Amino acid sequence: MEYRKIKDEDEDRDAGVEEVGKSFLLPVAVADNDLTSDGETKIDGHRMKAKWKRKSIVTLALTVLTSSQAILIVWSKRAGKYEYSVTTANFLVETLKCAISLVALGRIWKKDGVTEDNRLTTTWDEVMVYPIPAALYLVKNLLQYYIFAYVDAPGYQILKNLNIISTGVLYRIMLKKRLSEIQWAAFILLTAGCTTAQLNSNSDHVLQTPFQGWVMAIVMALLSGFAGVYTEAIIKKRPSRNINVQNFWLYVFGMCFNTVAMLVQDFHAVINKGFFHGYSFITVLMIFNHALSGIAVSMVMKYADNIVKVYSTSVAMLLTAVVSVFLFGFHLSLAFFLGTVVVSVAIYLHSAGKIQR
Amino acid sequence: MEYRKIKDEDEDRDAGVEEVGKSFLLPVAVADNDLTSDGETKIDGHRMKAKWKRKSIVTLALTVLTSSQAILIVWSKRAGKYEYSVTTANFLVETLKCAISLVALGRIWKKDGVTEDNRLTTTWDEVMVYPIPAALYLVKNLLQYYIFAYVDAPGYQILKNLNIISTGVLYRIMLKKRLSEIQWAAFILLTAGCTTAQLNSNSDHVLQTPFQGWVMAIVMALLSGFAGVYTEAIIKKRPSRNINVQNFWLYVFGMCFNTVAMLVQDFHAVINKGFFHGYSFITVLMIFNHALSGIAVSMVMKYADNIVKVYSTSVAMLLTAVVSVFLFGFHLSLAFFLGTVVVSVAIYLHSAGKIQR
Repeated sequence: MEYRKIKDEDEDRDAGVEEVGKSFLLPVAVADNDLTSDGETKIDGHRMKAKWKRKSIVTLALTVLTSSQAILIVWSKRAGKYEYSVTTANFLVETLKCAISLVALGRIWKKDGVTEDNRLTTTWDEVMVYPIPAALYLVKNLLQYYIFAYVDAPGYQILKNLNIISTGVLYRIMLKKRLSEIQWAAFILLTAGCTTAQLNSNSDHVLQTPFQGWVMAIVMALLSGFAGVYTEAIIKKRPSRNINVQNFWLYVFGMCFNTVAMLVQDFHAVINKGFFHGYSFITVLMIFNHALSGIAVSMVMKYADNIVKVYSTSVAMLLTAVVSVFLFGFHLSLAFFLGTVVVSVAIYLHSAGKIQR
Repeated sequence: MEYRKIKDEDEDRDAGVEEVGKSFLLPVAVADNDLTSDGETKIDGHRMKAKWKRKSIVTLALTVLTSSQAILIVWSKRAGKYEYSVTTANFLVETLKCAISLVALGRIWKKDGVTEDNRLTTTWDEVMVYPIPAALYLVKNLLQYYIFAYVDAPGYQILKNLNIISTGVLYRIMLKKRLSEIQWAAFILLTAGCTTAQLNSNSDHVLQTPFQGWVMAIVMALLSGFAGVYTEAIIKKRPSRNINVQNFWLYVFGMCFNTVAMLVQDFHAVINKGFFHGYSFITVLMIFNHALSGIAVSMVMKYADNIVKVYSTSVAMLLTAVVSVFLFGFHLSLAFFLGTVVVSVAIYLHSAGKIQR
């Protein structure tokens, strides 16, 4: 199986990813390699610490950016309905991510010169898998329009928590990574906790979802989980490859697929009213925020994994609600409080249940 | 401190409790002590198995009886308001428990004769602590009338889950028993899960509980937890003492305190309408069920502990709701489903997180 192969290569090159990743993000961290008798242990300690620090930084960035994205969406909704074409915004997000990756690459080329690992040119073998995540997301987004025939928007928010379970299961199957029993328990709790936190007086409507609605929700969860895990597999397949090159290729195909979506859905609006019709300051903010959080997702895939991503975005969801209390005067429910308790315990258990290697 | 003393004695006599407990409940279990070379190991294995079996039986009995008690209450409520004096019923429950203990003792005397451990007569030193749990429960029940000035009945049901936390904390402090970190996490989840399962559209009212209401709820939770843990301390202080003797003395004081409550609250009703006014078939069923579940609580205290009791009654709560779907056509909410998932994971974690001794 292909994913098995990816995983095996990943393990073989595991030493490599550590080196390169570090030299990109934290170039100073391992400078101090003094040659005492326990010099090697010290360097190993430094490496672990630098690795942990990098993982923490990208996870924190993802949490903050996801949360602020949700807050911007609430803000824009309160300011009125979307006046702009969503597909043009999505196209700009992909373009911005491409541009940011190129700028980062430019700086690296200036510093280190063009090497095998950071050159932009690529082989057919490397690039052929990059369109797949973008294509999966496109299919998922198209399905999204149809699921609303069976479920209302708050119900959809609740069903979306199936993503957590599907990501865990696909992560296990596709990447052959093991979670301990305690970590599986934590994952079930994360799903239950997130759902509990989103409960409101109308939530029980979800239980009346017709069979087709459940099937679509499960298919969407699988598509979304598959896209996430597949992206991780692609990025980790070549651990020594610079993340900005990998991002560039991912986002180029994102631009392509979004162009198609734009032409299909908003061709007339763009032709008649112009590409930027209805854009406001907050739209621009949302595009920037979305681009940065997309890059943070890639970084989490490279330096951590999909499990960390799921925990990070779950915490972001809770964070958004708390911040909304102060910004928009939202009320927190008892269910939110209970869900937060369960999610917090899940995070503790995920770390307490780590498999000793 | 007194509790410390109780605990220390408990540990000293720990071998004893195993022997006696077994000879009462499962007299056949250790008959087979064949003298092979690994005879001792075999006997040890049998002992562990018998101990585990006894613990399981009393826990299961408590779960089923607690659940059926709750179902009888729902049934009696649907049949109309309480027509009888609750205090007379409580008095009869205590009397019945006394009678059952005496019958059980009579059979043991017939079989084994009267020994130091199963004689009914007692010392002042042994008996002086027995009124304390009954007194604590009386105070708690009196407070119950006042808390309704601040919280409504469904809100009170939700606040009662504070009992779980208070029992865990007092169990740790008074009995000096340790729970692992995972088991503490499980206990927090049990509280959150039970509360989640009870959520309904009015639950958020609880968050508006005034300060006095919170204080009373916390005091009641502490009283209830204290009474439970204190009962365990009394029963386990003399592990070789027959449980029926211990129960007899506990219930005698229960009768006394309930007589006081009856005289204070229902004196006129009993005098004018008679002791048994308003009794129906279902009232008699409830009294029998309540008596048996009271004895099951004592057994769980003797052969297991307060932690097992809390898990058992939590599962009973969930069981009641599921059975009510079939009996009374109740609807299960999404919150109930999520709470059940969290409670189930908590039970798994409690057992997975067992401290290795």
